[in-house]
Amino acid sequence: MQPTGDYLETMRATAPLVHNITNYVAMNFMANVLLAVGASPAMVHAREEVAEFAALAQVLSVNIGTADPDWGAAMQDAAAVMNAHARPWVFDPVGVAATRFRQGLAKDLLALRPTVIRGNASEILTLAGMAGRARGVDAGDSVEAAIEAATTLAQATGGVVAVSGPVDYVTDGARAFRVANGHPLMTQVTVMGCSLNSVIAALCVGQSALEATVAALASYGLAGEVAASVAQGPGSFQPAFLDALAAQTPQALSDGARISAA
Amino acid sequence: MQPTGDYLETMRATAPLVHNITNYVAMNFMANVLLAVGASPAMVHAREEVAEFAALAQVLSVNIGTADPDWGAAMQDAAAVMNAHARPWVFDPVGVAATRFRQGLAKDLLALRPTVIRGNASEILTLAGMAGRARGVDAGDSVEAAIEAATTLAQATGGVVAVSGPVDYVTDGARAFRVANGHPLMTQVTVMGCSLNSVIAALCVGQSALEATVAALASYGLAGEVAASVAQGPGSFQPAFLDALAAQTPQALSDGARISAA
Amino acid sequence: MQPTGDYLETMRATAPLVHNITNYVAMNFMANVLLAVGASPAMVHAREEVAEFAALAQVLSVNIGTADPDWGAAMQDAAAVMNAHARPWVFDPVGVAATRFRQGLAKDLLALRPTVIRGNASEILTLAGMAGRARGVDAGDSVEAAIEAATTLAQATGGVVAVSGPVDYVTDGARAFRVANGHPLMTQVTVMGCSLNSVIAALCVGQSALEATVAALASYGLAGEVAASVAQGPGSFQPAFLDALAAQTPQALSDGARISAA
Repeated sequence: MQPTGDYLETMRATAPLVHNITNYVAMNFMANVLLAVGASPAMVHAREEVAEFAALAQVLSVNIGTADPDWGAAMQDAAAVMNAHARPWVFDPVGVAATRFRQGLAKDLLALRPTVIRGNASEILTLAGMAGRARGVDAGDSVEAAIEAATTLAQATGGVVAVSGPVDYVTDGARAFRVANGHPLMTQVTVMGCSLNSVIAALCVGQSALEATVAALASYGLAGEVAASVAQGPGSFQPAFLDALAAQTPQALSDGARISAA
Repeated sequence: MQPTGDYLETMRATAPLVHNITNYVAMNFMANVLLAVGASPAMVHAREEVAEFAALAQVLSVNIGTADPDWGAAMQDAAAVMNAHARPWVFDPVGVAATRFRQGLAKDLLALRPTVIRGNASEILTLAGMAGRARGVDAGDSVEAAIEAATTLAQATGGVVAVSGPVDYVTDGARAFRVANGHPLMTQVTVMGCSLNSVIAALCVGQSALEATVAALASYGLAGEVAASVAQGPGSFQPAFLDALAAQTPQALSDGARISAA
Repeated sequence: MQPTGDYLETMRATAPLVHNITNYVAMNFMANVLLAVGASPAMVHAREEVAEFAALAQVLSVNIGTADPDWGAAMQDAAAVMNAHARPWVFDPVGVAATRFRQGLAKDLLALRPTVIRGNASEILTLAGMAGRARGVDAGDSVEAAIEAATTLAQATGGVVAVSGPVDYVTDGARAFRVANGHPLMTQVTVMGCSLNSVIAALCVGQSALEATVAALASYGLAGEVAASVAQGPGSFQPAFLDALAAQTPQALSDGARISAA
């Protein structure tokens, strides 16, 4: 990998338009996260315009957190546009273990071969067809328990798979990295994971998906560490986190990233 | 009642999964409120998965703030699952006085006998079939004016009814309590009431619905008092409120609760 | 114009109920903005109740940011109610340049003659049928480039048109003003423009639409200046902005407004 900050710097230089089809809970915070890192967010889902809009975007981020069949179809429409233009797209399988509907939708999206899949261990285990023990959207399994599943899933889809946890694991099925940045307060704020996926998407534009994902995880986790150092709790953490994302320099990211080959 | 903090401690020990079908305005803040108090939130509404998901949750919170017929049907599906499993569910009749559609939806939900109903005086008066003077979602009536309605409604539904206001009133139709915690700044922030209902839901798991509701109102109001003491206005109140919820100890709640038998 | 603060004072004296049909991203922040300025917000969109609710409101604010055909129809229903009661309504053509679906919806709404249209230069250019170069929801054109379009659009619709930018331009097709309040941090926070439209709506109740729009832009921009002076970045800007809106006195607005005839 290049110095970690380079991936951030490259993204900011083009401020890519990130098309998000995400859950209702995440939309506002995700948009603010993308603005803070220096990307340009848009949330568009209607079947009547989603494909036309996708063609304008550099990258797509989809999340099944509050999906229904119409939204699921819009995700597939947009992903197909990205594939047709050879542009990256990122998939967040939120709570996929919880219901058969989500599993069906995830199956349809996997068939479209996402560039990057990021989820918690339970979600990645479920996607890989193994037995997760998810409850709602929490991670009931450890990252270590999902490494084999991540590798299998990456090889099966041809994409990058990232497992979030205290130490993240990222693999393209051949190479793998661990990212040790982050802070426990990040788990006490909703849609932190969802919003991370769109940062991954932004960094993927024109860069190696594997390396961009690793850099995005380090950037995000480092901002969480900075925010936690000034926050009084999960409420004051949120504005501090957005401030930290916006203030993060490429050099600070290169210095603060805790990445190792796995 | 036990010491008020006991109800909070009991809830945190199990971190119940709270299934919310709520309005778009409330979703993000409600999820953060639930995480801050120590519960586990999920927002799920699609007809294709709502019943399957409800079966995984310990408790349900429904809110008609931005409902449409599909969402209303999903609320009924989920409530029926809760009833079938003898699990509690909480109903927030937001703005029910405003339109016939909301009144029809509320009637359908009342028929499913919510464990707890919490609203402002105008909403409780409307539910009880009396003449409220609501405008939008504001409370145009005083808590005192709704006491008879609350008692009637509790007796008719067999549930607990809570009327929010400067001093809250809570009754199961036989016993009643007043809760004097809170701060006027709480009325200058949107979805504070909506989010409260899900805290009530969390505390109801495995505990007396009447006492859990009283404890939830005290906990929430006390956090509002703490947040108001450091806030500069309604903007800085929000992060301070989430911090206060997360930092609240059972002992602080027992000491700060202002509850009286009514 | 009267002293700028007078428009704010008049609005606060009646605390108008503002009916919003807006995008999912904006709902929570918009509601908090309206509460902070002293108005009463409601978000209602279901076809089954939207017209009945609109009849209760003093003013309507519509925004096509995440619209679909159902929501678009609800917007038209509500706008027709406002027109029938001779009440104002405000239109935000978010991202109208991006897709044909948005252009069709905007055309339908323009035919209902909004009282005020506010957008960025690209959006106003698109509405006026000229060639914008919008990408997503960003402004790719300068305010100066949209002045002729704004005048044309105001004359064609009989309404007020406002173009947001570093210096805003507001015209009713005959008279025009420039408003120089604001701060660059406002562009790094999502839905700041969307939420502004509902403040314009609140101030339009019972006041000259042209002058109320100018006053709203000055009030909003001034609060942004105050917030930026204490913010550490786009995250801490948000609570500080809501605090500044709530704390703004009519006198402070009159003193701080930077308005000039154009």
